[in-house]
Amino acid sequence: MRAVVLGGTREISVEQVPDPEIEAPTDAIIRVTSAAICGSDLHMFAGRTVAPPGLVLGHEPLGVVEEVGPAVTTVRKGDRVVIPFNIACGVCFNCTRGFTSACLAVNADSAGGAYGYVNMGPYRGAQAEYLRVPFAERNCLKVPGEPGDEWEDDFVLLADVFPTGWYANELAGVGEGSTVAVFGAGPVGLLSAYSALLKRASEVYVVDGVDDRLAMAAEIGACPIDFRRGDPVEQIVEQRRRRTAGKLQPGEEKMLGVMCGIEAVGYQAVDWNDPTMAENPSRVLEDLIGLVNPTGRIGSVGLYVPNDPGGINPHAKRGEFRLSFGKLWEKGLSLGTGQTPVARFAPALCNMIVEGKAKPSFLVTQRLPLEAAPEAYAKFEQRAFGYTKVILRPDLRVSG
Amino acid sequence: MRAVVLGGTREISVEQVPDPEIEAPTDAIIRVTSAAICGSDLHMFAGRTVAPPGLVLGHEPLGVVEEVGPAVTTVRKGDRVVIPFNIACGVCFNCTRGFTSACLAVNADSAGGAYGYVNMGPYRGAQAEYLRVPFAERNCLKVPGEPGDEWEDDFVLLADVFPTGWYANELAGVGEGSTVAVFGAGPVGLLSAYSALLKRASEVYVVDGVDDRLAMAAEIGACPIDFRRGDPVEQIVEQRRRRTAGKLQPGEEKMLGVMCGIEAVGYQAVDWNDPTMAENPSRVLEDLIGLVNPTGRIGSVGLYVPNDPGGINPHAKRGEFRLSFGKLWEKGLSLGTGQTPVARFAPALCNMIVEGKAKPSFLVTQRLPLEAAPEAYAKFEQRAFGYTKVILRPDLRVSG
Amino acid sequence: MRAVVLGGTREISVEQVPDPEIEAPTDAIIRVTSAAICGSDLHMFAGRTVAPPGLVLGHEPLGVVEEVGPAVTTVRKGDRVVIPFNIACGVCFNCTRGFTSACLAVNADSAGGAYGYVNMGPYRGAQAEYLRVPFAERNCLKVPGEPGDEWEDDFVLLADVFPTGWYANELAGVGEGSTVAVFGAGPVGLLSAYSALLKRASEVYVVDGVDDRLAMAAEIGACPIDFRRGDPVEQIVEQRRRRTAGKLQPGEEKMLGVMCGIEAVGYQAVDWNDPTMAENPSRVLEDLIGLVNPTGRIGSVGLYVPNDPGGINPHAKRGEFRLSFGKLWEKGLSLGTGQTPVARFAPALCNMIVEGKAKPSFLVTQRLPLEAAPEAYAKFEQRAFGYTKVILRPDLRVSG
Amino acid sequence: MRAVVLGGTREISVEQVPDPEIEAPTDAIIRVTSAAICGSDLHMFAGRTVAPPGLVLGHEPLGVVEEVGPAVTTVRKGDRVVIPFNIACGVCFNCTRGFTSACLAVNADSAGGAYGYVNMGPYRGAQAEYLRVPFAERNCLKVPGEPGDEWEDDFVLLADVFPTGWYANELAGVGEGSTVAVFGAGPVGLLSAYSALLKRASEVYVVDGVDDRLAMAAEIGACPIDFRRGDPVEQIVEQRRRRTAGKLQPGEEKMLGVMCGIEAVGYQAVDWNDPTMAENPSRVLEDLIGLVNPTGRIGSVGLYVPNDPGGINPHAKRGEFRLSFGKLWEKGLSLGTGQTPVARFAPALCNMIVEGKAKPSFLVTQRLPLEAAPEAYAKFEQRAFGYTKVILRPDLRVSG
Repeated sequence: MRAVVLGGTREISVEQVPDPEIEAPTDAIIRVTSAAICGSDLHMFAGRTVAPPGLVLGHEPLGVVEEVGPAVTTVRKGDRVVIPFNIACGVCFNCTRGFTSACLAVNADSAGGAYGYVNMGPYRGAQAEYLRVPFAERNCLKVPGEPGDEWEDDFVLLADVFPTGWYANELAGVGEGSTVAVFGAGPVGLLSAYSALLKRASEVYVVDGVDDRLAMAAEIGACPIDFRRGDPVEQIVEQRRRRTAGKLQPGEEKMLGVMCGIEAVGYQAVDWNDPTMAENPSRVLEDLIGLVNPTGRIGSVGLYVPNDPGGINPHAKRGEFRLSFGKLWEKGLSLGTGQTPVARFAPALCNMIVEGKAKPSFLVTQRLPLEAAPEAYAKFEQRAFGYTKVILRPDLRVSG
Repeated sequence: MRAVVLGGTREISVEQVPDPEIEAPTDAIIRVTSAAICGSDLHMFAGRTVAPPGLVLGHEPLGVVEEVGPAVTTVRKGDRVVIPFNIACGVCFNCTRGFTSACLAVNADSAGGAYGYVNMGPYRGAQAEYLRVPFAERNCLKVPGEPGDEWEDDFVLLADVFPTGWYANELAGVGEGSTVAVFGAGPVGLLSAYSALLKRASEVYVVDGVDDRLAMAAEIGACPIDFRRGDPVEQIVEQRRRRTAGKLQPGEEKMLGVMCGIEAVGYQAVDWNDPTMAENPSRVLEDLIGLVNPTGRIGSVGLYVPNDPGGINPHAKRGEFRLSFGKLWEKGLSLGTGQTPVARFAPALCNMIVEGKAKPSFLVTQRLPLEAAPEAYAKFEQRAFGYTKVILRPDLRVSG
Repeated sequence: MRAVVLGGTREISVEQVPDPEIEAPTDAIIRVTSAAICGSDLHMFAGRTVAPPGLVLGHEPLGVVEEVGPAVTTVRKGDRVVIPFNIACGVCFNCTRGFTSACLAVNADSAGGAYGYVNMGPYRGAQAEYLRVPFAERNCLKVPGEPGDEWEDDFVLLADVFPTGWYANELAGVGEGSTVAVFGAGPVGLLSAYSALLKRASEVYVVDGVDDRLAMAAEIGACPIDFRRGDPVEQIVEQRRRRTAGKLQPGEEKMLGVMCGIEAVGYQAVDWNDPTMAENPSRVLEDLIGLVNPTGRIGSVGLYVPNDPGGINPHAKRGEFRLSFGKLWEKGLSLGTGQTPVARFAPALCNMIVEGKAKPSFLVTQRLPLEAAPEAYAKFEQRAFGYTKVILRPDLRVSG
Repeated sequence: MRAVVLGGTREISVEQVPDPEIEAPTDAIIRVTSAAICGSDLHMFAGRTVAPPGLVLGHEPLGVVEEVGPAVTTVRKGDRVVIPFNIACGVCFNCTRGFTSACLAVNADSAGGAYGYVNMGPYRGAQAEYLRVPFAERNCLKVPGEPGDEWEDDFVLLADVFPTGWYANELAGVGEGSTVAVFGAGPVGLLSAYSALLKRASEVYVVDGVDDRLAMAAEIGACPIDFRRGDPVEQIVEQRRRRTAGKLQPGEEKMLGVMCGIEAVGYQAVDWNDPTMAENPSRVLEDLIGLVNPTGRIGSVGLYVPNDPGGINPHAKRGEFRLSFGKLWEKGLSLGTGQTPVARFAPALCNMIVEGKAKPSFLVTQRLPLEAAPEAYAKFEQRAFGYTKVILRPDLRVSG
């Protein structure tokens, strides 16, 4: 079958690889109909991880069950299924507590496994024609409809990025009437803001420095903050001051930040405060510590790693950053981090899609054949105009 | 000043009564700009409580602070304020746990006080030109804008009925992607359904037998169920069967009811199953026990009382009803009841209104002078066309 | 193998039945080392259910894995395991939400399955030498130690009754400093009280009418309330009045009941208020509605059923009881019901046992060979002195 | 009256100051019977804050109401009261959400006020004969008994340190069966460990380097870890490895840290890993990031500040520390920080004390007259033998 393969830094090719096979009685094989490229794939693409050459990439699949192992009964050939990016056994200590993101059984190196990702276990990626899915009953989420229908682009976002945006809101304590700031308007940031709006937050700010992404934030009803125009914290406080003019109760002028801060950028953040926009991995965290109100919460879902070969200094190479902990503590802030346990949120989000209460596919700008992967990775990394979220569709053929 | 006074059964008059005065240093006097008539007022109107003659009615006020006692500093003359119907001291065991609905200090007879309501303490009602508000710092919720502005009708609903509908959802465990059935499409039922939709429930059914109320449910995006056409439980199950056709996982056909049931009718419920639509106070509860799925939850916010002079039999007069407890238990259902603690929800709901995320005033069908109260009570009780929610406005004068 | 078999009403025999076999690749066979008799078994024994003759009884097993199916990898021959009474697939909608008590896949008739119980699916019971365990990876909880060690009696209680008592506390909202009343001092009631004490409730009352059970309640540090001496509600209020004398804040005299009420009796409750102590299935629920404070919570874990051939009247035969719903609503009470999802609580309770923080086996009064089952059922039903909790041990032989 | 006054660095005197007076109608004056010295007072004592000379110290008072303002009704002269260290208005946005630790009305400089503490508002401290208490109804917690009784030492700990230890557990997610590591065996650390044990954590490790504190940890049932013997993280992992030998499920060897980490040291931490035990404010946080298991939680209740004149380097002077954020994120840890909202926990903890379920005064090593304050501060700072928790009692006179 054809698959997207990582060579070295910024080297992507589409190659023939052996078809996957049922290896354990609880496996399934799915035929992939859509597989998204994730912002976290870019870290491997850019050589900012220790991913080995030859890795088949991709961890955001939607497809149809092609074959199941002899112990699989609740999933059947022909079922349309979303595959959460976290591979989970479903029965270990972490899985049974709802943390399928930290399954103890699927990855010898650490807690949690995924398809096609460095350090996440020996699993081939989903940017391919077929995918082997371990513990299929736990890891196949059945969805309605047919491949290529109106929901194809929505459902593929259930594999990772919509539940990730939703989790950011859970970590940050977003609810009805909340004030929220999302740093980053890539796919995760936009779906974090979209999730905040779905949860009826009353004010949702989205910080970025790319025009079409800011425009997309505005379109869904968030308030775009362009960091190229100056300190985003000051911009948000100024907006909140205007919006609340005359409405504040005594003392509430101390609460002109937001209650809920979301970090959706990760360790390759640029510093708006630097004339050259150099990389500064603690910039967003520092802004959030400054912005979030006393007793507020921060949810961090942009990726941070303890081992970054391209870090800006020896500390950064080990994932160590200087943070204003004294200020964070004085404010009594809380911080939640990590990968979303997709299976915890996907069923409800799926219901919302099916009943027309959510349409996350506003984000999807490209649907491309597998063969377009090399160009798509490059453009996505450059934040090229219109490359917000790319879906690879193995059924599509290169035109011309 | 003028005030709406309960005489005997179905006797309402508008009378001159003495102006309220500051009685304690923590009091405030507000000038009422809007005061709604509540469905629960109808129980007193209909002689179905032990309310004494002479009671000034009304517990849903919006107004402007006219005067404050010497110990009041955070509330000032001129502030526009919503007054939650629960009167709360703010410092007792229940208040500090968030249950301002069960304040121990304001009512010698039981836990919890309210304005103008039988057994809820010695407080004059709000359907009047002025109102004394005890513990003013706790019981005045400051809101922006000016009397009579675009939010006048929204804010007055923050005093009771919008937080009550919201609480119904909290009790019933409604969240994103939930399936919800609301019994009753009066003001509380409609705002329960509206709250469910705000919370992004995926399916929201509303059961009633009055045309214009069912139409209003449909307008906000809920699915109306007319009990005059037959068993509402069967109707909902049938709809769910159709909507989920082909989507159900194995075994999920046992879950064709809803996960969240809301009772928004109260003890004067009629029985759709009776040819004469006679009163049957356990009808709605029984339907919910039948409809809600295993492990689901029921929230009951329609009023039930332990002392009903007009009960249909001696047991009903004491608020005792026969319920299918064996079935409820077998399903592992949970049930939450009681009056909403308004202050817990009102600030967030207010934010949503101000930022355009919620507009509960779709419900308001009448804005009438105080003098129209007698007719308004009668029409409201008859569910006369268009009398869904009536606001009394002391500033309005009878025309002609 | 030998097994305990239900004949007709009050007919129990120990018979030879075929050994269980691996039927699905995810099955395991365990050799039972201990299997408790549950109070809920008595309903079948007494003919108060529609259990068919020939049923092998028992749903509280502890044992050692003898054999596993080809798809089972995390459980291995020789593992010592507790088997939760709820049979769960681990992957359906209810299981993944933590409600293994309402699994959709294991019982065609309703949500939730169990071993050896009427209407709970086609599973043979555990009062036998061997037991087939479906979905073994989900349904075997590994525990340390060796058969017959110091924990044998503690671990067997993890299969049902300790998690049930714990769940009662979760449903009733018990936490540090809570006031709690437990109705019923059978095994579930005693472990409910014990759980409340473990959770550092400050006052724990236990209501019953059997001397040795009340003595056991006192021994663990609860306050026994003997309903033969009069209204248990009044007794508890009187005790609370004495204990809080001089400590009450203004208004707190309205809170002299308890915040948390636990029902641990079930539908065969007797009426302390009746001279003959006749059965009255709503007696305990009515007492709790009277006793629990405004905004308090009730947890009901005693069994109620919708189909009771021996009910005291036609309504009771259908599980329908008259309840003071008006009073419950006025107080704003919440009610939680149903079977505990054992797997949610058992790992933490196991940790407590292993580290010496809990020792639920204080309850166990008998360890008997399978052959003693007929006498044990009879004595347990009569609440014979010392028959509080009986464990059947297939390894024991009848002496003499 | 006499009061403990901060001069300059390490200068404490007991001086005559004017008696406090009722300044607002909601004030009360209490006669202090006990006032504890807090570890956080030592930061001011050591010149590690910007506290101004002349400050009356102390924020942990127990006493008797002497006088109340005209608007105070629920608190009366003669009431025995604990005064939470957080001063709260009870009605602002933060107070009504339960965050009395971040009251918006009592401190112009930031969110939250306290008695006798730098940057916490213009309130005189409690190490004195009398104390003015603003918003007395909210800030006086009534307790039973008489001054000097068996509970005197327990109740004074309700003002700060017992609720602080309890909050650490809430932030860290401690529950029944949890594994917990507490860094620091000062008063807060010991009461954090004690709270964990009260909550029935199954394993509680306490890290320190002072003999009598480690002994006290062992006495209450925790496992002492002496950091003078080497890396405390390795010591704990080694202990857990031994305790769980043979009990681990497959994959659980990745979980040999603890699920719940508590930081109870603050910014003046010493580095066990440095031969001179030099100060290293991030040492404890780094150890916790290394120790806590994937998906675990950290609660930080030791004080950190954004402005430390004595910081070890320019960054530390601003409260900025380098942290292994990449590792924290990879593990998906959560972090909660800040001052405890005393009023949220004190009533339940008080119940536990009164009913004999908790006895935090095991901690109290000294009860001294006010005049002993200078020596007590010095000895406490030096961790002199037996100076674990010092209570100043204004009624005591210097002997001899």
